[in-house]
Amino acid sequence: MTTAVPDDSFHVFDTTLRDGAQREGINLTVSDKLTIARHLDEFGVGFIEGGWPGANPRDTEFFERAQSEIEFRHAQLVAFGATRKAGVRAADDRQLVALADSGAPVVTIVAKSHDRHVELALRTTLEENLAMIRDSVVYLRERGRRVFVDCEHFFDGYQDNPDYAKQVVRTAHEAGADVVVLCDTNGGMLPAQVHAVVRTVLNDTGARLGVHAQDDTGCAIANTLAAVDAGATHVQCTANGYGERVGNANLFPVVAALQLKYGRTVVPPRALPEMTRISHAIAEVVNLTPATHQPYVGLSAFAHKGGLHASAIKVDPDLYQHIDPELVGNSMRMLVSDMAGRASVELKGKELGYDLAGDRELVGRIVDRVKEQELRGYTYEAADASFELLLRDEVHRGRTAPTGGEAGAAAGAPRFFRVESWRAIVEDRPDGSHANEATVRVWAKGERVVATGEGNGPVNALDRALRVALEGVYPQLARMELVDYKVRILEGRHGTQSTTRVLISTSDGTTEWSTVGVADNVIAASWQALDDAYTYGLLRAGVAPSE
Amino acid sequence: MTTAVPDDSFHVFDTTLRDGAQREGINLTVSDKLTIARHLDEFGVGFIEGGWPGANPRDTEFFERAQSEIEFRHAQLVAFGATRKAGVRAADDRQLVALADSGAPVVTIVAKSHDRHVELALRTTLEENLAMIRDSVVYLRERGRRVFVDCEHFFDGYQDNPDYAKQVVRTAHEAGADVVVLCDTNGGMLPAQVHAVVRTVLNDTGARLGVHAQDDTGCAIANTLAAVDAGATHVQCTANGYGERVGNANLFPVVAALQLKYGRTVVPPRALPEMTRISHAIAEVVNLTPATHQPYVGLSAFAHKGGLHASAIKVDPDLYQHIDPELVGNSMRMLVSDMAGRASVELKGKELGYDLAGDRELVGRIVDRVKEQELRGYTYEAADASFELLLRDEVHRGRTAPTGGEAGAAAGAPRFFRVESWRAIVEDRPDGSHANEATVRVWAKGERVVATGEGNGPVNALDRALRVALEGVYPQLARMELVDYKVRILEGRHGTQSTTRVLISTSDGTTEWSTVGVADNVIAASWQALDDAYTYGLLRAGVAPSE
Repeated sequence: MTTAVPDDSFHVFDTTLRDGAQREGINLTVSDKLTIARHLDEFGVGFIEGGWPGANPRDTEFFERAQSEIEFRHAQLVAFGATRKAGVRAADDRQLVALADSGAPVVTIVAKSHDRHVELALRTTLEENLAMIRDSVVYLRERGRRVFVDCEHFFDGYQDNPDYAKQVVRTAHEAGADVVVLCDTNGGMLPAQVHAVVRTVLNDTGARLGVHAQDDTGCAIANTLAAVDAGATHVQCTANGYGERVGNANLFPVVAALQLKYGRTVVPPRALPEMTRISHAIAEVVNLTPATHQPYVGLSAFAHKGGLHASAIKVDPDLYQHIDPELVGNSMRMLVSDMAGRASVELKGKELGYDLAGDRELVGRIVDRVKEQELRGYTYEAADASFELLLRDEVHRGRTAPTGGEAGAAAGAPRFFRVESWRAIVEDRPDGSHANEATVRVWAKGERVVATGEGNGPVNALDRALRVALEGVYPQLARMELVDYKVRILEGRHGTQSTTRVLISTSDGTTEWSTVGVADNVIAASWQALDDAYTYGLLRAGVAPSE
Repeated sequence: MTTAVPDDSFHVFDTTLRDGAQREGINLTVSDKLTIARHLDEFGVGFIEGGWPGANPRDTEFFERAQSEIEFRHAQLVAFGATRKAGVRAADDRQLVALADSGAPVVTIVAKSHDRHVELALRTTLEENLAMIRDSVVYLRERGRRVFVDCEHFFDGYQDNPDYAKQVVRTAHEAGADVVVLCDTNGGMLPAQVHAVVRTVLNDTGARLGVHAQDDTGCAIANTLAAVDAGATHVQCTANGYGERVGNANLFPVVAALQLKYGRTVVPPRALPEMTRISHAIAEVVNLTPATHQPYVGLSAFAHKGGLHASAIKVDPDLYQHIDPELVGNSMRMLVSDMAGRASVELKGKELGYDLAGDRELVGRIVDRVKEQELRGYTYEAADASFELLLRDEVHRGRTAPTGGEAGAAAGAPRFFRVESWRAIVEDRPDGSHANEATVRVWAKGERVVATGEGNGPVNALDRALRVALEGVYPQLARMELVDYKVRILEGRHGTQSTTRVLISTSDGTTEWSTVGVADNVIAASWQALDDAYTYGLLRAGVAPSE
């Protein structure tokens, strides 16, 4: 087990917010970027490349807010940009000035290192390109920034003109760049090539080298490790391998390989078991389903199906897994369905304070109901509170008493209110404005209440109407707030007739809980999740059920 | 360009039907297996491992039917099984007999090569394990079969006890196995290790070696290539990398690397441009969406989003792609996003039939509007049709005429109808049922129409109301159908008050187009996307704008 702390001798450099955002389908808001930056910092990467300040308003805003809103514990913020334009003084290049002005302590500038690109894309001379690199590095160093230089298309360039490619590295190094990063921009390289080139360039230039690999041959992780084997001490990766085209080198398997296979401490050892959670959390922020077959962190990464394997695993799990999944916060799963289902329901029950192990029939009933509900589109992995309500409901039908759940309420299916009916109206007026109005009819503590709410959308209007109806009876609701709301359309090939799943997170200021609703339309699904959210919240607040 | 034909000196061995089927979520019928075998044969692999005849009725049936129903042009069928049981004569081992009886010309038997597994899982002696391998190979050779031996856990075994691992290889080789396959069963290896072990084993045993890599470190493709670099001449892969846990070495990038990067003819050259189609067809059979970010064959594998890239691609597409996508039957795609800028707007315009290159001011206006819209939550990379409407709108304000767009309509912002107002009502009745009703007030061809629709959700109801209102005037709408609907909540940390983005795909039976809507609530966002969807559809149908 490694126990040292990472230091500057090896860099884990994350570029999810810059290069990762180039993935088709990813479109990050400033708030998304801030959330991802927090996750990456928690994971302990050394550098977070946040974007290109000055190039678009979103990136400029991100740098301002990241520096005032995030207290980084591990990472340094990196601004990305390009070398000065041809024929312009560095200090007169607006883009370079914006980089220095961004306040980021580290700046990465991209430089051309492939002679063909200098001539065709940059339309300048090979000499001027070297001057552009030199001047830009010197300018940023004078402005007090640490400078890394990304040599775009380095490996392709090296194949065409190795001398010029090496000259680029030497120029950047001698001008004061701390790291010169060799980029496989088009992703066409294979590990053996990367290894040979990095070794030669290291010998011939003496510069500190980094690597940036794209995954177009499916070898980005291996190419990154090959560069490290050859002496690179700076690896550029993205969370979950997000990036242009096929993607970039995936941060998580690269870090896992370095830490667990090489025995090198590149992130704080205590961060490693957070890997699976952080990978999935970042996927949620970018609104992509976490890839189930991702190395180390995928849901299936330690799932066993084969009969041969199953019997051997009973003897010793390590016979069929390359590492203990707990090292990366994942877990082994046996896909023998029913058995696994029972075990996890028992485990989950225990977590919630119910000892279900003695009641085979009750556990069977809960497993059946979960399976049935999941077939209809519900998911309980991300909706703990709805699962607890389901479990309580089944416990109530049986006889098992709780051993003292965290919520501390009585056993059984708690009901604080009963809904008679509701209605939501969304109206688009001739002037282009919208009106959202909802009416709810509910019974609480024996009384029928009819209330109306307005909001900026139908769900918001329903939420307000329900609060108006219930807050007199349950003042505890005032402390609860919806903090997250997600919609997923299931069976997406049926147009607007698909099933809709809504996940809602609610907070009472101290803790958060999540609930799920599934229906043929988004409003009805949201209503279910809202109903569960307030029921669970009142239960958690210790209120006695009344209906 | 390679033109030779593959021969026995190098084996592409596919195990999709055996090891690939171990992937979580894959469950193949006999008919699925036959279809996949046909695709693999068309792709030109040398060997298709079909399963374990005798072990389950499905695999037995597959071998019977494959031999009578498929006329293989390239591939030989391979039956998979295990060495004889401990303490039993090979000819008395029912499972071995079933392998020989299956009629498959080639048999792969799995053998233990890790001493710990022999003792813990097989519960026999190291000597008896060698005898089991020897006897099984000899028996199958006597029955006229070509024999390959899979050494399970070879690399882990080699680390623990290299002498025994090598003894296993020698035993199989001397007994008459044509290829001894070194398996990284737990998938924990990295390329440098694989390379070193394969090279040593090759030198020390003289056996013909193969490699079988699992992807648990994300290096299965690289591990396979590392083994080839070290002298292995037989690679075991699965289509799309399907397999237990994270999966196996992906057939397509392995073949692409060997054929395009190594210049080695391992499948018939004319099969390579079929790769993308075959990969997607196999995904369809196993009922998984083709992975969009798969190397070479993914939808995104040659999609470009970055502004830097777009401007260079205008000069020469090869500046930003590692191979010509047509070599593997894929194609380049330009995505429009706020990171892109002028170059990608020009390129996209050209794709749509507008020559914008001469009008800097117009391009600037479009770029500005895209940026502004994306800041508000719109995304155009997944909404081509909405982008085209935006572009036409700006073109209309300027003077640039289209050079002949695919849709063939007049320049300018087309309007077929004008919305006065709309209203959607969702009602939950006391009996638990839902009513969804919508009313729209629109103007079309100078007339005001008020129409009402019901649906299974508010968006569906609005869609129907709009169709009722317009179908009399535009009968072309009857052919259009919503085929996909996606919702994303932006800035998800503000509960139900977030911004909502809706993406809709519409089809007219021949083509599909996508539109986007963004608003403070899901109904209004859906309405915008619907409006764009029908406007674009009518434009595409060649209808003359009327409003």
